[in-house]
Amino acid sequence: MISRTTARAVAAITLAWWFAAATPAAAQDPLPSWNDGASKQAVVAFVGRVTKPGTPDFVPAPQRIAAFDNDGTLWVEQPLYTQFEFAIDRVKLQAAAHPEWKNTEPFASLIEGDVGRALANGEESLQQVLAATHAGMNTDSYERIAREWIKTKRDARFKRPYSTLVYQPMLELLDYLRANGFKTFIVSGGGVEFIRAYAEEAYGIPPEQVIGSSGRMKYQMRGDVPELLKLPAVDVVNDRDGKVISIQKVIGRRPIAAFGNSDGDLQMLEWTASGKGARLAMLVHHDDAAREYAYDRDSKVGGLDKALDVAVAKKWVVVSMKNDWNVILPKQ
Amino acid sequence: MISRTTARAVAAITLAWWFAAATPAAAQDPLPSWNDGASKQAVVAFVGRVTKPGTPDFVPAPQRIAAFDNDGTLWVEQPLYTQFEFAIDRVKLQAAAHPEWKNTEPFASLIEGDVGRALANGEESLQQVLAATHAGMNTDSYERIAREWIKTKRDARFKRPYSTLVYQPMLELLDYLRANGFKTFIVSGGGVEFIRAYAEEAYGIPPEQVIGSSGRMKYQMRGDVPELLKLPAVDVVNDRDGKVISIQKVIGRRPIAAFGNSDGDLQMLEWTASGKGARLAMLVHHDDAAREYAYDRDSKVGGLDKALDVAVAKKWVVVSMKNDWNVILPKQ
Repeated sequence: MISRTTARAVAAITLAWWFAAATPAAAQDPLPSWNDGASKQAVVAFVGRVTKPGTPDFVPAPQRIAAFDNDGTLWVEQPLYTQFEFAIDRVKLQAAAHPEWKNTEPFASLIEGDVGRALANGEESLQQVLAATHAGMNTDSYERIAREWIKTKRDARFKRPYSTLVYQPMLELLDYLRANGFKTFIVSGGGVEFIRAYAEEAYGIPPEQVIGSSGRMKYQMRGDVPELLKLPAVDVVNDRDGKVISIQKVIGRRPIAAFGNSDGDLQMLEWTASGKGARLAMLVHHDDAAREYAYDRDSKVGGLDKALDVAVAKKWVVVSMKNDWNVILPKQ
Repeated sequence: MISRTTARAVAAITLAWWFAAATPAAAQDPLPSWNDGASKQAVVAFVGRVTKPGTPDFVPAPQRIAAFDNDGTLWVEQPLYTQFEFAIDRVKLQAAAHPEWKNTEPFASLIEGDVGRALANGEESLQQVLAATHAGMNTDSYERIAREWIKTKRDARFKRPYSTLVYQPMLELLDYLRANGFKTFIVSGGGVEFIRAYAEEAYGIPPEQVIGSSGRMKYQMRGDVPELLKLPAVDVVNDRDGKVISIQKVIGRRPIAAFGNSDGDLQMLEWTASGKGARLAMLVHHDDAAREYAYDRDSKVGGLDKALDVAVAKKWVVVSMKNDWNVILPKQ
């Protein structure tokens, strides 16, 4: 018969052994928010293939380019793109200085809080509002205003600052790819300077790895000091075909992995998938109304129609947020 | 009296000690092709200031952005920009397929070998030739052609492949900055895809850190395979004000160090120098006709006029190739 002290010692040692054995295994899963299943397995298998030197699919680290859409792929885009929420707030803040807006659409409706009516004209109204709120100041002022807003403004449903409405499984995926020598880029239809205002802190992606839409700018001297004035005119529309063209212009290399969630990402995924060697093309499918949102074919924001059919036909990875992700948003 | 053996042993030990002491000191000079003098001291002092944690001028590594002009700053640009030499060769190669060029300027003059007459119309002729030779193919084909040419074609004066007509002191400067946590970018008026064809091998600068001028592109399917077709239309002219705008669009951060050699770099240098904290703005002055070329105020290629006056007035670093560099081109 063993003494109680001995029994305790044995139990302590057993526990210590158990933790020592268990902890490394747990720490080794780089994607803990991803449920085991085909999506997670496809990602891990792909990374394994391209990082094993001396095998046919090996890709040298400098060529491991991964391109991520932003709205709906890395963070929440419903019920309205975050940048547009920002623009609406800017309209309200600036309304006093623009008395003419009271009688001009889409501004009048926005000031009255009727977003639906403001956007009745679709894309055109959106462009008008973005032009009015994202121009007429220099780039330093814009950066300050956007940073402040995105850190503090909370969304209506989750009551969290927008900068935290990012997907935990995608944060893990970004880290996992970078730990395996990938360079991660954002390739978004959103405004490049808006995304940069929070991307480094939220995603670990520095400004020079953010590609987005942008407006025209003017270089001018204010006294002795040069500044870049933001003009109310669109320059680059980084969506659909435009994403591929921007990838070529800015990165100059075809990605080997691309991640999107809407028809705006179809060409980027096609371009990535059609390169030689191992490729990873992934669509995030929003099918979880309980924890986030459920939308695809007819959605005005982040519509996913043709790209979903192509993804199925070409056997790209289609992530079910409901089934593949055990967590959606990071802990606060 | 010591034996000859002992004397030899002492000599060997002394020599070994001397080499051991001397080698690290020699290895420690990261800029051996730079003569000691104000230019070299300014570079070393600047790097020392921004990399010392806890001091007022310390800059965190991700913000250590260095922007380099290419033609005339990193490699030879005389007597004609290298990209234009490439375009002339393309005209000659394609002449048989374009019988109409025999009667059309500037092509007729180029085919006859009279570059001066071809360029009589200046900028306009240049654009015509670039458009005709850099478009009508997809991006993969262009890359293949440019890579091949730049590695094999030799220039008339130095009889070396163009890819080796780079400045040894600037290669050392690029390495030195990177070893100190800087991210080095090219910000050139030249075509971005032309520079990328050799920049990684020659300078250690990957495609995504090359910013240049670019033409329009069209994304299209050739059968089942997507391609980017290069169109004969200019999109971005990355010169003067355009360099600052591109820096904002692509990098999204103001450089803390910038390097140029002509009036086309003035705005980029102003923009860099006018940021807060320690800044390095440098002009390479071509004053060495014996070893390279001597040109500044009235030069049609790489003209340096206003920027030279501003540099002197603002105490930017003006590098004399003749006095500051003990080597111009790398050994072959």
